[in-house]
Amino acid sequence: MRQTIIDQFKGIQNGICRALEECDGQAKFEEDLWRHHSGGGGITRIIQNGEVFEKGGVNFSHVEGDLPPVIATHLGVQGVRYFATGVSIVIHSSNPFVPTIHMNIRYFEVESGQSWFGGGIDLTPMYVNEEDARFFHRELKAVCDRHNPAWYDDFKHQADDYFFIPHRNETRGIGGIFYDHLKPGEKGTFEEIFQFTTEVGKSFAPVYTAIVNRNRHLPYGEHEKNWQLMRRGRYVEFNLVYDRGTKFGLETSGRIESILMSLPSMVAWNYNYCPKENSPEAKTLELLRKGVDWVG
Amino acid sequence: MRQTIIDQFKGIQNGICRALEECDGQAKFEEDLWRHHSGGGGITRIIQNGEVFEKGGVNFSHVEGDLPPVIATHLGVQGVRYFATGVSIVIHSSNPFVPTIHMNIRYFEVESGQSWFGGGIDLTPMYVNEEDARFFHRELKAVCDRHNPAWYDDFKHQADDYFFIPHRNETRGIGGIFYDHLKPGEKGTFEEIFQFTTEVGKSFAPVYTAIVNRNRHLPYGEHEKNWQLMRRGRYVEFNLVYDRGTKFGLETSGRIESILMSLPSMVAWNYNYCPKENSPEAKTLELLRKGVDWVG
Repeated sequence: MRQTIIDQFKGIQNGICRALEECDGQAKFEEDLWRHHSGGGGITRIIQNGEVFEKGGVNFSHVEGDLPPVIATHLGVQGVRYFATGVSIVIHSSNPFVPTIHMNIRYFEVESGQSWFGGGIDLTPMYVNEEDARFFHRELKAVCDRHNPAWYDDFKHQADDYFFIPHRNETRGIGGIFYDHLKPGEKGTFEEIFQFTTEVGKSFAPVYTAIVNRNRHLPYGEHEKNWQLMRRGRYVEFNLVYDRGTKFGLETSGRIESILMSLPSMVAWNYNYCPKENSPEAKTLELLRKGVDWVG
Repeated sequence: MRQTIIDQFKGIQNGICRALEECDGQAKFEEDLWRHHSGGGGITRIIQNGEVFEKGGVNFSHVEGDLPPVIATHLGVQGVRYFATGVSIVIHSSNPFVPTIHMNIRYFEVESGQSWFGGGIDLTPMYVNEEDARFFHRELKAVCDRHNPAWYDDFKHQADDYFFIPHRNETRGIGGIFYDHLKPGEKGTFEEIFQFTTEVGKSFAPVYTAIVNRNRHLPYGEHEKNWQLMRRGRYVEFNLVYDRGTKFGLETSGRIESILMSLPSMVAWNYNYCPKENSPEAKTLELLRKGVDWVG
């Protein structure tokens, strides 16, 4: 079963890389293969300085090892031996009107036999375009609805809660879906949950490239660029201070460059920047909160 | 006694701001006064876009409140009511040959009557200049030696251990001195430790401006600038992932803009950047490790 999941996840990585290269039209992914010190390894693919994509990574990894005790306790699992595989994506674009996006699908197994899937896709626009936001959430809802009519609501709330920056009292972006510890049981068989996770992965490219293509040619100036660089600062704050995946990678001594590929190439922190009232920037900030209904 | 410490610390803030403005010759500090939700407040002073200093903060604060239980446990203190006051400085310069510097002096008191001082100064050059590094460490040693001949070695090792980025296996810079939980006892009376902490604060301006003035006119190009932006990335990684002061500020809901003034204005993350062998960048990396003897 591990190999089936690995093969499926690798296929998803390949499909997404092809679609993003085609969308960009200029840059190609470069690949780094690496091995993890405790077992397994990964395929890191990075796209840089493209027509649209400034820096992005589409990474596959499968890692085996011993969980640091603090993480085992946190997960509430017995035994420390684990196997994890997943695809992780973060894409930052040059144009401030093209949102940053993140996707992750993952499978986790510990020696006691417990195993689960997790995943999700969330969007981080520098300027929230409400039409795009509705499109994005409706597409994700459609993926969920094909499997369980309760999942979109559930996973949308989880994304709101997860992609939140407490010290800023802001969500990282407009959310999306996020799920973790999704185990076979009432909600579906192992096969069904695996199938759902696969579909989340496969929905990434068509949904994101549609949003990219709507915005990639919008003109912008220095003002919008500066705002983008500051918003990227928030992205860095979230990833380094709160993101569990990043923490897990750093604590299990993963391949640092593959973990931190999520950080944008250029970032700014301006002291105490406050957008003007009623500006597009202020309007965006108003929408970076939990509980916004994008599908109603 | 609290008021005496507060007055002394405010005086140190004033002296440092004057010295840095004089050194820069162009930019002036701007001041924000703020109150903390649970008691006390601060004086944040920011210098930006100067002749030398690109972004820096010299902050005073005195805060009272209830410790989050997890921090109280971590500190091993009884009672959760605390009083803390300190001066915190981070200065980032435009010229990649002018090191970033950090200083902090602080006094901490909990309701059970326990109290201690902490502090230190550490230097983060983008290019390690060995002569500057020796000057810097010898000046700090001189401050320590006037109080206790064992302190420089002790506090230098603590700085090496503290300003370390495990996931990069690099020190943040060339260290300096760092001490915490320095309580009245064998090592000195309350008055002596307070006096030492004051002298650390007062040594900041002459030591740093000497280093600034040696390097501020060195020419540099795009290559050195890019390296600086990437090294700043490491600074951000340290501060957001490991720095206890930053964590304490975020967890006690301090004034975010004053805490995160430590982050540079422009930062870069380049995927998997490796300096050329024997380059100045590679030589610097070789010196970013624990245990380098700069005073021998």
